[in-house]
Amino acid sequence: MRRVDVNCDLGESFGAYTIGQDEKILDQVTSANVACGFHAGDHNVMAKTVKMAAAKGVKIGAHPGFPDLLGFGRRLIETNPEDIYNFVVYQISALKGFCDIEGVRMQHVKPHGALFNLAATDGAVAEAIAKAVYDVDRNLVLFGLSCSELIKAGTNIGLRVANEVFADRTYQANGTLTPRTHEHALIHDVRLAIEQVVMMIKSGKVRAVDGTIVPIQADTICVHGDGEKALEFTQELRRALQVEGISIRSIL
Amino acid sequence: MRRVDVNCDLGESFGAYTIGQDEKILDQVTSANVACGFHAGDHNVMAKTVKMAAAKGVKIGAHPGFPDLLGFGRRLIETNPEDIYNFVVYQISALKGFCDIEGVRMQHVKPHGALFNLAATDGAVAEAIAKAVYDVDRNLVLFGLSCSELIKAGTNIGLRVANEVFADRTYQANGTLTPRTHEHALIHDVRLAIEQVVMMIKSGKVRAVDGTIVPIQADTICVHGDGEKALEFTQELRRALQVEGISIRSIL
Amino acid sequence: MRRVDVNCDLGESFGAYTIGQDEKILDQVTSANVACGFHAGDHNVMAKTVKMAAAKGVKIGAHPGFPDLLGFGRRLIETNPEDIYNFVVYQISALKGFCDIEGVRMQHVKPHGALFNLAATDGAVAEAIAKAVYDVDRNLVLFGLSCSELIKAGTNIGLRVANEVFADRTYQANGTLTPRTHEHALIHDVRLAIEQVVMMIKSGKVRAVDGTIVPIQADTICVHGDGEKALEFTQELRRALQVEGISIRSIL
Amino acid sequence: MRRVDVNCDLGESFGAYTIGQDEKILDQVTSANVACGFHAGDHNVMAKTVKMAAAKGVKIGAHPGFPDLLGFGRRLIETNPEDIYNFVVYQISALKGFCDIEGVRMQHVKPHGALFNLAATDGAVAEAIAKAVYDVDRNLVLFGLSCSELIKAGTNIGLRVANEVFADRTYQANGTLTPRTHEHALIHDVRLAIEQVVMMIKSGKVRAVDGTIVPIQADTICVHGDGEKALEFTQELRRALQVEGISIRSIL
Repeated sequence: MRRVDVNCDLGESFGAYTIGQDEKILDQVTSANVACGFHAGDHNVMAKTVKMAAAKGVKIGAHPGFPDLLGFGRRLIETNPEDIYNFVVYQISALKGFCDIEGVRMQHVKPHGALFNLAATDGAVAEAIAKAVYDVDRNLVLFGLSCSELIKAGTNIGLRVANEVFADRTYQANGTLTPRTHEHALIHDVRLAIEQVVMMIKSGKVRAVDGTIVPIQADTICVHGDGEKALEFTQELRRALQVEGISIRSIL
Repeated sequence: MRRVDVNCDLGESFGAYTIGQDEKILDQVTSANVACGFHAGDHNVMAKTVKMAAAKGVKIGAHPGFPDLLGFGRRLIETNPEDIYNFVVYQISALKGFCDIEGVRMQHVKPHGALFNLAATDGAVAEAIAKAVYDVDRNLVLFGLSCSELIKAGTNIGLRVANEVFADRTYQANGTLTPRTHEHALIHDVRLAIEQVVMMIKSGKVRAVDGTIVPIQADTICVHGDGEKALEFTQELRRALQVEGISIRSIL
Repeated sequence: MRRVDVNCDLGESFGAYTIGQDEKILDQVTSANVACGFHAGDHNVMAKTVKMAAAKGVKIGAHPGFPDLLGFGRRLIETNPEDIYNFVVYQISALKGFCDIEGVRMQHVKPHGALFNLAATDGAVAEAIAKAVYDVDRNLVLFGLSCSELIKAGTNIGLRVANEVFADRTYQANGTLTPRTHEHALIHDVRLAIEQVVMMIKSGKVRAVDGTIVPIQADTICVHGDGEKALEFTQELRRALQVEGISIRSIL
Repeated sequence: MRRVDVNCDLGESFGAYTIGQDEKILDQVTSANVACGFHAGDHNVMAKTVKMAAAKGVKIGAHPGFPDLLGFGRRLIETNPEDIYNFVVYQISALKGFCDIEGVRMQHVKPHGALFNLAATDGAVAEAIAKAVYDVDRNLVLFGLSCSELIKAGTNIGLRVANEVFADRTYQANGTLTPRTHEHALIHDVRLAIEQVVMMIKSGKVRAVDGTIVPIQADTICVHGDGEKALEFTQELRRALQVEGISIRSIL
């Protein structure tokens, strides 16, 4: 029986600032990527999010990002692999503290935003991240863009990996996501988005923006948790997956 | 045979900003309190400092502080014990990640600056910190101002504690440090500073600024690592301790 | 004819984080207190907010706060009047840059949150703020808690002042606001809140939480801009003021 | 008679962190580029630096940079011209507040680090910066890398510009600085550095790292203020300029 994990970025609130409907989305997903205080989230939000996810049985992952609250981790910052290794170690370890306290084992690590995109194509950055994850805990699963450099680096170092696909984002001919700054980066039509996901899981392929058919592996689907629409979309996606006989389960 | 630990705040550099002569001071102390990125330090500095301390066989401790780089953690920020619990968990866990990677066990936790002072007198804050330390790793030693609320809270929760004394700071009649903003907060005369330390270790007492003799326990002495003078002072202190037959050894 | 200004904190969004319904609340108020990037707001939000307020003819004021995004400026940070003077100069001047570009004159300065509360009772802090405002532009109006130290300091240095009252906050017997951490800090009943305001404007008095009648001057009323309720409340307040024959106009 | 300005980055300390020997270097330069709190500096450092420069008769300029204290503004952050326009307006305006209080007119604006480099080659960024400077005060002089896009943009919008050259940095064949990450980025030999400067001023040319002779205009020379060596270098440079009959004077 085919299976897929459904993951969502969570714990992105900061101080008095609230983003996302974390409590509601936790009922819909199997894996939660929790921000670690660099691009979003803070220690209080992390404590609360880990507690909530643990209570709902959702698997927890660290979601490290560039140190850039102002840019929400979506902007590339020019730096070197050593710096990235160190801030990934720092962020994963900080979140691990809260998981340990709640008595839950951290399942995975998924880089955020610009770091996720960079790690998809930059081999040295991908290796730095994979090594940081491995060095902190070799049982962690590394989430990366399907077929990306990050997935390769994770596999090479001996980590279990999960190929991530996006329901509401379009793909380029080289298998990477169309950048958010481009037109057609997002799929607004729910039916098209769900069709894309089902095709990816069942056939291992996706149609890129230029029409090319690109091979893709779908171990986990990324959904969004901000706004009513995102919630409804996730519910529809779950229904569609069930209809197609695809089981929704966390990686571990 | 009498023994005492000598500890120093380290890893307080940040980005392009350098503070302290960490490499040199590490040859003089037995325990290093490493800043964790909130009041000072950053992930790169932490990685480097842990590596250096481990190489020199100096025991490593986390040095969590208020989230206030601008104030270097020396300013009280009005907050609640839950917030403090969470940011102490976060900071200790982040540093623990680097210790684990270097294969060294973290020895202790010592709150920094305004947090250290607050924890000396505020029971609820002391409990929050002790609980955070205990929850992250119950084998950690909690460093606190000698005979303070923090020492009490650590003992109550079941942690091993180390009573800290200061060589170059004066004490008030209630056993707390004279605040830095006051006159006579610092002892500038090396001989007087050393005499104070030796008296504390040998007799378990200290003379407060108002002349009162206050009971004090000296498990660890705090020295400073910034500037040539601080280094020389520590060397003189070590010599004096040896002359007095006091062994200089880390807590664990 | 009696008149009163209605002011609201605005421009408190930060990066990807949105707080408040700025565009809607700007239709209801006569003065906007714009965050300056220390406790909330950023340079892009400031540019946008100043532009919007200018377009709607709402008077603009700087809303300086403690450098504490995590605490949204609501937490007291232990510091000195010189530091406060300097960060108030910095924040006012930064906002002034955007006002000058839009061709509008900045009307006022109102300290935010913990700084506002501190300035209400601490004479030295009040003087530092008043001097900062005066030194940047002596034509600025200083907003402060009615009858507070800040109002006194502003008057003493030669600034025009506006005594601020709160519709939805209760008062203590000494004329200061009941802290948010206390029970009964907020008035949830719209009718009671409006009655309090009208009484303050017409009779120059308010009933404190302990029943005492306290003298109060109401030059400007603070309303909130977050959420539908806050908007509706402001609309009701405006209607009530009009019914009472009180004109709603900015200070300058 | 030939003349040249000598400028230096100053006011880069932050909180407890000290960088540079500002007081000493101010005796050697004619223009000071003062950090504005985004990549370095804080409101207290700005107040102190402006006061010192004013007292010594050194002309003051704003030195805006990317919002990146951790990277000291030396790392490119992916963003858009509108964001850059807004943060340059913010930073210049904040510094202007301190200049106005000291009764000195701000002379110039010079972007810092990665922003300076980006503005040298990216026309849209150069235009955003030039427009920000012009919109805040059209009498400001814009400092940019000699013959760069920033100089062009400043000239186009109607600003007075100053072409900057570096004594201790090497040039590439396209007239830009060799990046710090490259070998041969810095000239360590004092005599060679001074020869390069004198040649630039007298002949309007410089020899690039690949041997090419590149045209260059030298209105202002950038020197450094950190360390004894930097100070000595500046003194030697001044002597050499005087020997060559070149007058050292600020731009305005």
